Amino acid sequence: MLKGIAASDGIAIAKAYMLVQPDLSFSQVSIEDPESEIKRLDTAVAAASEDLKLIKQKAAENLGAEEAEVFEAHLTILSDPELMGNIGDKIKNDKVNAEAALKDVTDMFISMFEGMTDNAYMQERAGDIRDVTKRVMSHLLGVSIPNPALIDQEVVVIAHDLTPSDTAQLNRKFVKGFITDVGGRTSHSAIMSRTLEIPAVVGAGNPTTAITEGDMVIVDGINGDGIINPTAEEISTYEAKAKAFSDQKAEWEELKDAKTVTADGVHFDLAANIGTPKDVAGALDNGAEAVGLFRSEFLYMDASELPSEDDQFEAYKAAVEGMNGKQVVVRTMDIGGDKELPYLPLPEEMNPFLGYRAIRISLDRQDIFRTQLRALLRASHYGQLAIMFPMIATVDEFKAAKAIYVEERTKLIDAGVPVAEKLEVGMMMEIPAAVMNGDHLAKYADFFSIGTNDLIQYSMAADRGNEQVSYLYQPYNPSILRLIKMVIDTAHKEGKWAGMCGEMAGDQIAVPILAGMGLDEFSMSASSILKTRSLMKKLDTTKMKELADKAVTDCETNEEVIALVESYMK
Amino acid sequence: MLKGIAASDGIAIAKAYMLVQPDLSFSQVSIEDPESEIKRLDTAVAAASEDLKLIKQKAAENLGAEEAEVFEAHLTILSDPELMGNIGDKIKNDKVNAEAALKDVTDMFISMFEGMTDNAYMQERAGDIRDVTKRVMSHLLGVSIPNPALIDQEVVVIAHDLTPSDTAQLNRKFVKGFITDVGGRTSHSAIMSRTLEIPAVVGAGNPTTAITEGDMVIVDGINGDGIINPTAEEISTYEAKAKAFSDQKAEWEELKDAKTVTADGVHFDLAANIGTPKDVAGALDNGAEAVGLFRSEFLYMDASELPSEDDQFEAYKAAVEGMNGKQVVVRTMDIGGDKELPYLPLPEEMNPFLGYRAIRISLDRQDIFRTQLRALLRASHYGQLAIMFPMIATVDEFKAAKAIYVEERTKLIDAGVPVAEKLEVGMMMEIPAAVMNGDHLAKYADFFSIGTNDLIQYSMAADRGNEQVSYLYQPYNPSILRLIKMVIDTAHKEGKWAGMCGEMAGDQIAVPILAGMGLDEFSMSASSILKTRSLMKKLDTTKMKELADKAVTDCETNEEVIALVESYMK
Repeated sequence: MLKGIAASDGIAIAKAYMLVQPDLSFSQVSIEDPESEIKRLDTAVAAASEDLKLIKQKAAENLGAEEAEVFEAHLTILSDPELMGNIGDKIKNDKVNAEAALKDVTDMFISMFEGMTDNAYMQERAGDIRDVTKRVMSHLLGVSIPNPALIDQEVVVIAHDLTPSDTAQLNRKFVKGFITDVGGRTSHSAIMSRTLEIPAVVGAGNPTTAITEGDMVIVDGINGDGIINPTAEEISTYEAKAKAFSDQKAEWEELKDAKTVTADGVHFDLAANIGTPKDVAGALDNGAEAVGLFRSEFLYMDASELPSEDDQFEAYKAAVEGMNGKQVVVRTMDIGGDKELPYLPLPEEMNPFLGYRAIRISLDRQDIFRTQLRALLRASHYGQLAIMFPMIATVDEFKAAKAIYVEERTKLIDAGVPVAEKLEVGMMMEIPAAVMNGDHLAKYADFFSIGTNDLIQYSMAADRGNEQVSYLYQPYNPSILRLIKMVIDTAHKEGKWAGMCGEMAGDQIAVPILAGMGLDEFSMSASSILKTRSLMKKLDTTKMKELADKAVTDCETNEEVIALVESYMK
Repeated sequence: MLKGIAASDGIAIAKAYMLVQPDLSFSQVSIEDPESEIKRLDTAVAAASEDLKLIKQKAAENLGAEEAEVFEAHLTILSDPELMGNIGDKIKNDKVNAEAALKDVTDMFISMFEGMTDNAYMQERAGDIRDVTKRVMSHLLGVSIPNPALIDQEVVVIAHDLTPSDTAQLNRKFVKGFITDVGGRTSHSAIMSRTLEIPAVVGAGNPTTAITEGDMVIVDGINGDGIINPTAEEISTYEAKAKAFSDQKAEWEELKDAKTVTADGVHFDLAANIGTPKDVAGALDNGAEAVGLFRSEFLYMDASELPSEDDQFEAYKAAVEGMNGKQVVVRTMDIGGDKELPYLPLPEEMNPFLGYRAIRISLDRQDIFRTQLRALLRASHYGQLAIMFPMIATVDEFKAAKAIYVEERTKLIDAGVPVAEKLEVGMMMEIPAAVMNGDHLAKYADFFSIGTNDLIQYSMAADRGNEQVSYLYQPYNPSILRLIKMVIDTAHKEGKWAGMCGEMAGDQIAVPILAGMGLDEFSMSASSILKTRSLMKKLDTTKMKELADKAVTDCETNEEVIALVESYMK
C-alpha cells in the first residue's frame, strides 16, 4: 500500500507498466578484435531501427501523425553514415568497445549541436541524438528501455516523474492511471492527469522500486492511495468505489448544460483554464461557461522561434470562435521562473521565481509584447476576448503595460483593422504587493484574476516546487484567505469583477469560502467544473458568507479553516 | 562625472587606487630549455615571497596580527617543497612553460582540497593556493596585482565590487572612499562602507575603466556622484561640502548621549544592528539605546564547525554585558538563502530565497536550535536579552519554536542554571503571510521586528540581489507601507511593541512616516543613529501621523510617497 497525493479523481485497476529508465552505465575496455565489435554495433543499430519502425507505426496509429514524426527523425539519425562511420572508426583506431565509442562520438555531436545556442533546430537535434544513443546502448547492454508508445493493453503507468515528452507518447486509450515517486498537486504529472482525466497519485514515495512490471495495481486518485497486488476482496471493494465514482460522474454529466446556481439561487461563473485552442473542446464538453485563463505561453513554448503575429492571431481567433461568444481571458506571455524558451535566452538567476519573468520581460522586450498585443487585438474582433497581464506588482507596471496596449490599439484602428469595441484589460493578482494596492489598481484594471499558486508561494516565501518547504503550501491559511478577500473587496468597490484561475478555484474546501466571499468567476481544470457545479448547488450563500467571515476573523491556521469548512458542510 | 547609488554619506577627495585584478591569461607553449624555465619560476616565487613578507608586515602594523596571519599561510605554501617540486617536475617532464605548469599543478591541488567537502580547513587552503598562484603568475607575466594592504597614502578605492576578503585587507586610515561598478544600497560593499563610515558610491557603471590609477577623484556619498580629475573650482566646491558635512557630523556627535525625542516631546528608541560582540563598542559610540538586531549567524559563519553552546554563551554574554543593561535582541540563526555554512551542507535549491532557511532549518534541525536557545537562556542572566525568530510564516511555526524554547528554559531552571526571570521572545516580520496574520501572532509573540529587505523582496516577488528586477525594490511603495502599518497596529492592539531592523529604519524618507505610524524601535547601522536622532528632533508626531495616513491612503506609487514626504519636510 502506497500513500501519496491525490492528483486526479477516479479509481483505476490494471497491470503496472514501469516507465523507468534502465541503468545504461558501462566500462570502457580495450578490445582485440575491432571487426567483431563493429558487428556488435551493427546488430544493436539494426535492432534499434526495428524498434523505431514499430514505435513509429504504433505512434501514427494511436497518437497521430505529428507525434510519430519524431521517430522518423530518430531513424534518419540511425542511418546517418557520418555518425555511424565515426563510431566504427573510433572502435578501429582506439581499440575500444562499441559502448565507449558510441558514447564518445555521440557526446561530441550532442555538445556541438547544443553549443549552437542561436539555432533552435540544431539544439533539438541534440535531444534526438541523445534518445537514439540510449536506444542503441540498451541493445548493446542487453537491457530494455520502456517504449510507452507500444502500450497496447490497459495499464497503470509507474514512473519517477512524468516529463512532457513522456506524456506526449502515452496512449490515452490504454493508460488507466499514473503513480509517481515525486511531484505535488501542481506538478506537470498532476496537471496532465487532470487534463487527460486519468486517476493519478503523485509523490507516492517509492513506487518505482516497490512495484514490478506486471504487478496488479489499484490507483485511488480520490484518496491518494496505491495498492500493489490487491486481494480479490480489495479488488471488489475498489470496483464498487469505481462504480460509485462513475455514477457520480454521470450525475455531474447531467449538469453539463446547466447554469451554476447555488441552493439560494445565486449564480457564479465556472470557467476553464486552457493552454491551446485545442483544449476548447474539452472545456465545452465539461460545461465551461467561459475560459478564465488561456496560458498563452504554450504558443511560445511549443515553437522553435518567437511565434509570429499571424500565428498567434490564428490561435487566439480559434479559441474565441471555439468558445462561441463566451469570454476567453488570455494571459500575456508568462515566461521565466521555471518556464524557459530555447530561442530566448534568459539571464542565469539565483532565484528565478523572484526574477525576470512575465510582464517584467514584456515591459523590457516591447518588441515581443507589442506583437502579442496586436495579435490579441485582431482576434478580439471574432468573439469575446479579454486580456490580462501576469506578475503585476505595482500601479506603475500596470499603467505602463496598459499604455502600450492603448498605443497598439490606436495604431490598428488607424490602419483600419477591425478590433472589438469593448475589450476588458485586467491583471493577475499573484504578488502580495499588488494585493495590498488593490484599491488603487482597481481604478485602472477592468478585472482581477487571482493566481493562487504564485500568490501562496510569494506570501509564504516558499517555493512551491521545493519539497523541503512544501508544508508551507497552505491555501486555506487565514493569511491567504485575507489576501483573497482583499482582492475581491477592492475589485467590487470599484465595480469590477474578480476571478480566480489557480488550483484553488476547483478545490472542494476552498469553493464554499470563495463563494461566501463573492468571487465572481472560478476558473479551473476543465475536469473539475462539473464536480464544482454540483457542489455549488448545495451551497447557501448567506451561510457561506458567515463561514468566510469566521475563517478570516477567528481561525489562526490552515487546519482550523479546514475543520471549520467541514463543520459547515456536514 | 559618474552617477551611482549613494551608499554611505560624506565627501572624499583623493587619488584613485585601482583594486582591479589584472588579466592573468597566458598560452601554453612547448619549451626547449626546462632549466631556464625553472629559473623563471624560482625568480617569480622569490619575488612573490618578498611581496608577501612586506604585505604581512604592513598588515600586522595597520590591520592587526589576525589579519596578517593569512599572509603567513601564503608564505608557507610558497615554501612547500611538494607543491613547488611538482611544478618543476611538470616543466621538465612535459616541456611546458612555467605558467602552464604552475596552473596545472595548482589546479590539481585546488580541486583536491575543494573536494574535501567535510573538511572546512582544507577547503580554506584551496582559497589560499588560488591567491598564491595569482601572485606568482603575475610575476611570471610581468603584470602587477593590487595589494591593498600596502596602501600608505590617502586613496579612493575603485573596484568592480568589494568582497569581504578585499575589505578585510583595507587600511581604514588611508582609504577615504569607495566607488564600485556594481552593487546597491544593501550590497556588501555598501554595508561595509557604512560600518567603516567611509563615503561610498556603488553601482556607478564603469569606474574601473573610466578611472586610471592615480587620477584625482571626488566621491560624493551624499548624492551618489563621482568626479574624475576635478577642476580646482570643483575641488573647492566639494571641500566646502565636505566641511559642511563634517560640521554636521560634529553637531550630530553632540547628540551621542541624548535621548531620541521629537520636536513635540515623543520618545523613540534608536538601536543598532550588530554582527558580533565586537560591534557593541561602535554601537555605544554612536549613541545606540539598544541593540535591535544581533545577527547570530555570524557566529556560525565565522566558525569552521557548529559553534558550541559555551562559545555562543560567551558571545551573547559579552554583548549583553557590553550593552550594560540596554536591551540586546538576538535573532536566532538565519542561515540558508544566500548564507551558507561550509560544515552544514544545505540542499541545492532552485530558489534558495524561497527555500530551506532560518527558522525552517531550526525547526527541522532541533539539535542546532536547542543548543543556541540554551546558550541564549544562560546569557540572559547577565543583562537584558531578548530572542527573536527569523522567517516565521505561520502561527504554527511560532508556537512550535516557542514550545522548544519553553522546554529548554524549563530544563535549565530544573538543573539550577540561572536564567533571566523576564525574557521577551518575539519574531521577525519579513514574510507577507505573517504580516497578514499579525493579529493572531501578536497574541503569542512578545514583539515584532520588521525585516524590510526580505519583506520587500517577498512582497514584490523580486530578488533584492537581481539587477534585472531592482526597480521593484520600492521601500516607500504604499503596499509596503501598508504592510508595515499592519505590523505596528496589530502589535499595539495586543499591547506589544514593534521595531524595525532593516535598512529602512535609518532612511531619511522613511523615518518621518515610520514615526507617524508609531514604530517603537528603529534599529539600524550604528553610523546612521546620530543622523536619525537629529532628524527626529525636527519631527512633530501629529504632523507625521497625518503624513503617514496620507501616504497609505492617497499615494499610489513609491515616487508619490517620496514627493509627499519631501513636501512635508520642506
